[in-house]
Amino acid sequence: MEKKYVYLFREGNETMRDLLGGKGAGLAGMTRSGAPVPPGFTITTEACNAFSAAGHFPEGLWEQVISALRSIETATGKRLGDPANPLLVSVRSGGKFSMPGMMDTVLNLGLNRETTAGLAALTNNPRFAADAHRRFVQLFGKIVLGVEGSEFEKVMEAAKGESRVDTDLSTAELEEITARFRAIVREQAKVEFPDDPMDQLGQAIAAVFRSWNGRRAVDYRRVNRIPDDLGTAVNVQSMVFGNMGDDSATGVAFSRNPSTGEHVLYGEYLVNAQGEDVVAGVRTPRPISEMKIEMPQVYGQFEQIARTLEAHYKDVQDMEFTIERGKLYMLQTRTGKRTGRAAVRIAVEMTKEGVIDRETAVRRVEPAQIEQLLHPALDPEARASARLLTTGLPASPGAASGRAVFDPDEAAAMAINGEKVILVRVETAPEDFHGMVAAQAVLTARGGMTSHAAVVARGMGKPCVAGAGELRIDYAAGQLSVNGTTIMKGEMLTVDGTTGEVLAGHVETQEPSLDADFETLMGWADTFRKVGVRANGDTPKDAQVARSFGAEGIGLCRTEHMFFEGDRIDAIRQMIVAENVEERRAALAKVEPLQREDFVRIFREMDGLPVTIRTLDPPLHEFLPHEDGEIRELAKQMGIPFERLKAKVESLREVNPMLGFRGCRLGMIYPEITEMQARAIFTATKQCREEGIIVRPEVMIPLVNTVDELRNQTDIVRAEAVKAGVSDYLVGTMIELPRAALVADKIAEVAEFFSFGTNDLTQTTLGISRDDSARFIPAYVDRKIFADDPFQVLDQEGVGQLVKMGVERGRATNPKLKVGVCGEHGGDPSSVEFFVRNGLDYVSCSPYRVPVARLAAAQAELGKEAKDK
Amino acid sequence: MEKKYVYLFREGNETMRDLLGGKGAGLAGMTRSGAPVPPGFTITTEACNAFSAAGHFPEGLWEQVISALRSIETATGKRLGDPANPLLVSVRSGGKFSMPGMMDTVLNLGLNRETTAGLAALTNNPRFAADAHRRFVQLFGKIVLGVEGSEFEKVMEAAKGESRVDTDLSTAELEEITARFRAIVREQAKVEFPDDPMDQLGQAIAAVFRSWNGRRAVDYRRVNRIPDDLGTAVNVQSMVFGNMGDDSATGVAFSRNPSTGEHVLYGEYLVNAQGEDVVAGVRTPRPISEMKIEMPQVYGQFEQIARTLEAHYKDVQDMEFTIERGKLYMLQTRTGKRTGRAAVRIAVEMTKEGVIDRETAVRRVEPAQIEQLLHPALDPEARASARLLTTGLPASPGAASGRAVFDPDEAAAMAINGEKVILVRVETAPEDFHGMVAAQAVLTARGGMTSHAAVVARGMGKPCVAGAGELRIDYAAGQLSVNGTTIMKGEMLTVDGTTGEVLAGHVETQEPSLDADFETLMGWADTFRKVGVRANGDTPKDAQVARSFGAEGIGLCRTEHMFFEGDRIDAIRQMIVAENVEERRAALAKVEPLQREDFVRIFREMDGLPVTIRTLDPPLHEFLPHEDGEIRELAKQMGIPFERLKAKVESLREVNPMLGFRGCRLGMIYPEITEMQARAIFTATKQCREEGIIVRPEVMIPLVNTVDELRNQTDIVRAEAVKAGVSDYLVGTMIELPRAALVADKIAEVAEFFSFGTNDLTQTTLGISRDDSARFIPAYVDRKIFADDPFQVLDQEGVGQLVKMGVERGRATNPKLKVGVCGEHGGDPSSVEFFVRNGLDYVSCSPYRVPVARLAAAQAELGKEAKDK
Repeated sequence: MEKKYVYLFREGNETMRDLLGGKGAGLAGMTRSGAPVPPGFTITTEACNAFSAAGHFPEGLWEQVISALRSIETATGKRLGDPANPLLVSVRSGGKFSMPGMMDTVLNLGLNRETTAGLAALTNNPRFAADAHRRFVQLFGKIVLGVEGSEFEKVMEAAKGESRVDTDLSTAELEEITARFRAIVREQAKVEFPDDPMDQLGQAIAAVFRSWNGRRAVDYRRVNRIPDDLGTAVNVQSMVFGNMGDDSATGVAFSRNPSTGEHVLYGEYLVNAQGEDVVAGVRTPRPISEMKIEMPQVYGQFEQIARTLEAHYKDVQDMEFTIERGKLYMLQTRTGKRTGRAAVRIAVEMTKEGVIDRETAVRRVEPAQIEQLLHPALDPEARASARLLTTGLPASPGAASGRAVFDPDEAAAMAINGEKVILVRVETAPEDFHGMVAAQAVLTARGGMTSHAAVVARGMGKPCVAGAGELRIDYAAGQLSVNGTTIMKGEMLTVDGTTGEVLAGHVETQEPSLDADFETLMGWADTFRKVGVRANGDTPKDAQVARSFGAEGIGLCRTEHMFFEGDRIDAIRQMIVAENVEERRAALAKVEPLQREDFVRIFREMDGLPVTIRTLDPPLHEFLPHEDGEIRELAKQMGIPFERLKAKVESLREVNPMLGFRGCRLGMIYPEITEMQARAIFTATKQCREEGIIVRPEVMIPLVNTVDELRNQTDIVRAEAVKAGVSDYLVGTMIELPRAALVADKIAEVAEFFSFGTNDLTQTTLGISRDDSARFIPAYVDRKIFADDPFQVLDQEGVGQLVKMGVERGRATNPKLKVGVCGEHGGDPSSVEFFVRNGLDYVSCSPYRVPVARLAAAQAELGKEAKDK
Repeated sequence: MEKKYVYLFREGNETMRDLLGGKGAGLAGMTRSGAPVPPGFTITTEACNAFSAAGHFPEGLWEQVISALRSIETATGKRLGDPANPLLVSVRSGGKFSMPGMMDTVLNLGLNRETTAGLAALTNNPRFAADAHRRFVQLFGKIVLGVEGSEFEKVMEAAKGESRVDTDLSTAELEEITARFRAIVREQAKVEFPDDPMDQLGQAIAAVFRSWNGRRAVDYRRVNRIPDDLGTAVNVQSMVFGNMGDDSATGVAFSRNPSTGEHVLYGEYLVNAQGEDVVAGVRTPRPISEMKIEMPQVYGQFEQIARTLEAHYKDVQDMEFTIERGKLYMLQTRTGKRTGRAAVRIAVEMTKEGVIDRETAVRRVEPAQIEQLLHPALDPEARASARLLTTGLPASPGAASGRAVFDPDEAAAMAINGEKVILVRVETAPEDFHGMVAAQAVLTARGGMTSHAAVVARGMGKPCVAGAGELRIDYAAGQLSVNGTTIMKGEMLTVDGTTGEVLAGHVETQEPSLDADFETLMGWADTFRKVGVRANGDTPKDAQVARSFGAEGIGLCRTEHMFFEGDRIDAIRQMIVAENVEERRAALAKVEPLQREDFVRIFREMDGLPVTIRTLDPPLHEFLPHEDGEIRELAKQMGIPFERLKAKVESLREVNPMLGFRGCRLGMIYPEITEMQARAIFTATKQCREEGIIVRPEVMIPLVNTVDELRNQTDIVRAEAVKAGVSDYLVGTMIELPRAALVADKIAEVAEFFSFGTNDLTQTTLGISRDDSARFIPAYVDRKIFADDPFQVLDQEGVGQLVKMGVERGRATNPKLKVGVCGEHGGDPSSVEFFVRNGLDYVSCSPYRVPVARLAAAQAELGKEAKDK
């Protein structure tokens, strides 16, 4: 039997994307739903591939095209090339994935001098016909015959002169222009413009096929990793016109409000206009609600079609339509994009309406959209009139306004006086913590998505824009300059951490609202989810927020973050400056009761849930000042000579602190630090348990390379547990170095749990410092060298191998090994999917991303809904 | 049949280490060789294990001990416990591996009041007998009965008073002391000292068995990864005494001179003395040559035995002997340790004598010893009287003296005036290069074995001591202080990079001599070697040295090292400061002819051999000054405002430069750099080929993470080759990031060769900055957390997995892929063995380590000689 290369729209359906391309499948699906689609047909991708291989139409194709064309003619009552009642068609390419660089659209195919005259007579509108002819020759000349588009535009410009626009041209002028266009084709393409409509059709189809192997299309596929053998389909569809008078119109509409989710038609339309007029914005379209009054019958039909399409596609539809002389045609329908708020409401309401089931509702909402709901956003109107200063990385979502402050102490002082401030720093360090606590938002000129500012801000749920490289910050002068604007200390500034935008002045924000629909959807998600979701939290406040967002435990409590509160830093600094173990123990003794009290408060908040506490991790120099003035001041305060403190600071300075004396290396050299921390954990555990609180402590050793390191630190921890009389706890380790993943089988001999620290694991596996990556990662992402910033989305191909290896090897030794992840990736949906697929027991992320992770984890179990690429 | 637990020395041999322990196997082997060994027997490790399991002697053991004892009695004509002619024995533990923490030695077992009297009568030396008895009770009490040793020492101290030594004690005093010792045993151990010799023997054997599970022994095994189930053997041997008069003596001797390798007996002896007297140094021993005159007959016998043992063991022997009343006994023989010079001479001469074959000669010499031969060494006598200031890391071998200088410019200036200088810096940076060139040696306070100073010094073959953390360097004052000594600028200092020692003043050195024996041995090695050996070299001079040491190509030419020569740095700095691509190209155009000329000169030196050139690798800030004064000066020189240059320096500053904007990331963002370098390489290639030189260029792209990076850079390189009209070259990549090894299959789609950059691969895999590692790696090595410094010896368990994976995956894609290594590990013998085992095609190391690598590579093919642990 002959191969079927051509499908009438009514023969296909929306699942046939491979064969009919995205557009063809959509037109077929819409036709099948019963919507009034202008009739047409699709030539398959297989035909394209056969054409590419042979260099000419495959056997039988042309005959099938003619046969399909006859079918359109029958349906429309028009005939291609018939001057009495000419059929006009559009010819469009349409591959499986939408692809710039491919041939676009030829409209009005079928026109020549005779059919144009016929169209003029038929519509009683010679100017309309002349303009349609002009447009066709121009498009066909450019797209099919390869004439440089500017050649045509020059003619148009010359004809209009300086003051007129397209619509000012007369019929005669348009005819003259078309004649010139034909001359240009003759000169440039060295061919006579084809006037036989079948010839036009054949050439247009071949041009679409050829464009698949055009240079831009090939380049695009290479960069976007789209296989070369997919081929493109060709869609041939009868034309309809919304510009045939006041009973004609064109418009776009959503089946529900995409901003709020309200179940009402939402869109706009233009009377006596073509689709491109809506886009061009020459005339202002009117809200679709007015169509109800103006064209009640058509509106009623459209409402009915929208309902039908929603029922057919089981989702909100974004539809394009044209009304030709009172008759409604649907030109396109696709899934409607929507805000997070709308997405949640629509999913829940559609479920209640019985259109979809709970599983579909959970699969449908983008986890990233959930995050929008949890943070304040700029008021869109206020945003529109605000002045954009620069854009940095969207490091922590939410928006806030406040007075620019460049010093953390000043930020704290102003906040005490009730001022709202934005802390602006070149980059932040742990010693800026109190300033970050005081600020509404944080803005830095340097640092990536996982820089200190970004991580801490996310942990606190505060907006942060990081790495805004155009900022020039002058601490001494107390000002920042950016693109010619200077903002002095105390002037208002607005930061949008969701978009990365920095705006001048105050901009109104809208508060987040977690409504009943949100709670409903999250509840459904939890019924599908199997993997645990914990939060990274360092303080009792964090723990409380985390729990309110549904966290099932603390996956990472960074003990050192507590060190910056109040005057605790003094004792820490004494510990660092200590010259021997006795001095060090004396200083640690001052820290211990504070740590214990923190743990007690966190344990109370997390009653019944596990709390993973990491022993001291950062290099010690992070706790000391680095500039002479500050060192001098601290030396005075500590009562030691400036020179001694300066020498200590110098001796601790590191070339690559990320790879330096930190993590368990500290506890190996100064076991008394681990001892103190373990003692604080276990005495707090004992105290809480005596209060009747269920405490599930998990002690986590960071930056382990070998099982001997872990054994050494575990021995210290267990000894303290024995002394405190505490049993029933776990000791485990971070897997955050490539070596640890490679020897996970050995490490699991000692570890009771693993927690993948994917931030550091990404840094080491890729050899990229997150603090220094801003100089090239954005360019890498732009050029698709990296699919995503590997600090936001797990590099599954590289880092993922180590995670997989770590899980498999660890469990091979200890099948009961509990395995989690506590890097930033624990809150990234695609990464969560990877972790679920590889058998992790839980993910842990910033408290404010817990709902995102809950939803992503549920979707990982269900499989996500297929989305158009 | 009953299990055989006891072996007479003559029943065993030197291969039975598992069963008889190292010591027992040695005594058996020596007995078997025909040497006069005091008769004895060994109780097997199996007996120990049976004892440990059961808690008592296994069935049949005691009977076998008695039977073996009878055999000794027959051989010696003495009987244990016979007052008329008492047999005395020693009891020693001896596992497969020598192990501190195990029971040591009980001497003179068999003595009690009666046998002591008999011994006195027999030797006609009551004092000797009394002292032997005293020693026995003391040793047995301490070692077998567990009495605190200090209890006995207190008695001895009291008896001697302040002025006398052991030998001043009279017979009566010794008897009194022994009585006191027995009382101490009674009080402390709550037992009566056993006087039955058989009882003594049984208790001593059980004590050896028990010591296997003593705490210190268990700890030692854990740290040294010795299995717990090996068990220890027990050696029981009849005593002989060198202190029975002037016809008795004791001594040690080598069968050849261990310092020069000369074939002559070399050692010393003491008449009328026991072995411990030689060690104690109370009397000065005499050279063994004098024995030839004093005891000609015994000397002749000893010479004969030495020859026999050499023939038996086929290596130089280090022998302990005792002469008892004119009769020679051999107590121990083992392989003699020797200097590198001696090792080479002995191996070559023994081969020529027909004792060993060439293969054995090559297997026998330690590659590390070869390195000693290539560098000047301190004159041992001069060294002995020099004052040690401190010890740092032995970062680059060789020794040199010179005036201390703290500034590279001053070092260069003084060198021009003919002064020998030692450059002393806290750490070095690329901008110190000219100072390092000018200096005899380099000394730094900070940095590890692969710090900048270490790597550059090794490349130049200059001595370097790095990371001497006790140094306090004050640049402003022009002085260093260390452990209370201050060295001012201009004062003499000596640095021994082979040992890491820093000495005050001038110390004479001995020049290296590569003699005929060395060339002979290296020639033999090359006949066995299969893997290629290349050198890392950046200059024509390096290339020439490398070739003279037998390098078969350049495995790593770091183009950036050339940038610091002369005023080239100016153009580089202009390139960095450039504000747009045109300025950058203009600056690069100045660099290009200089690079081309360097390549031309290197290609000439390496005529016929491959030269691997790496494109620009270090972060750009390495080429700029960092202090305000220097920045101001440079700005003036470049004719740009200070603020602009300062801002540039600031903007390039990185938190973790090792993980920053470097390697191919530079070429990705600034493709014009790669273009310029590729053009310089290919125009140089073309020019040299026209001269008739055979050029084999290999362009190497650093720090690749993904195949797309490599593809991008390779496209640039190949385009330049086409423009230059050059074909026949390779393009490949460093594998120096964990991710690159993990996705090596993908990278090999583009790469023609891989070169493992194991320095950076170690840094990233272990998350350890080599520059910052000095703070904990030494402690880690001391505590056996790391077996070796991973920057010296490849971490096979961790990093090695990635190397293996990289080779396998790369070759799976491209079976013809050429694979080498160019990290520091390419010159480390055990690492070379690993690389050979894993199928690498070549190793590349510093020019001065090429002979080491050649020998190590030959040994990797042959398998090394088993060495005692």
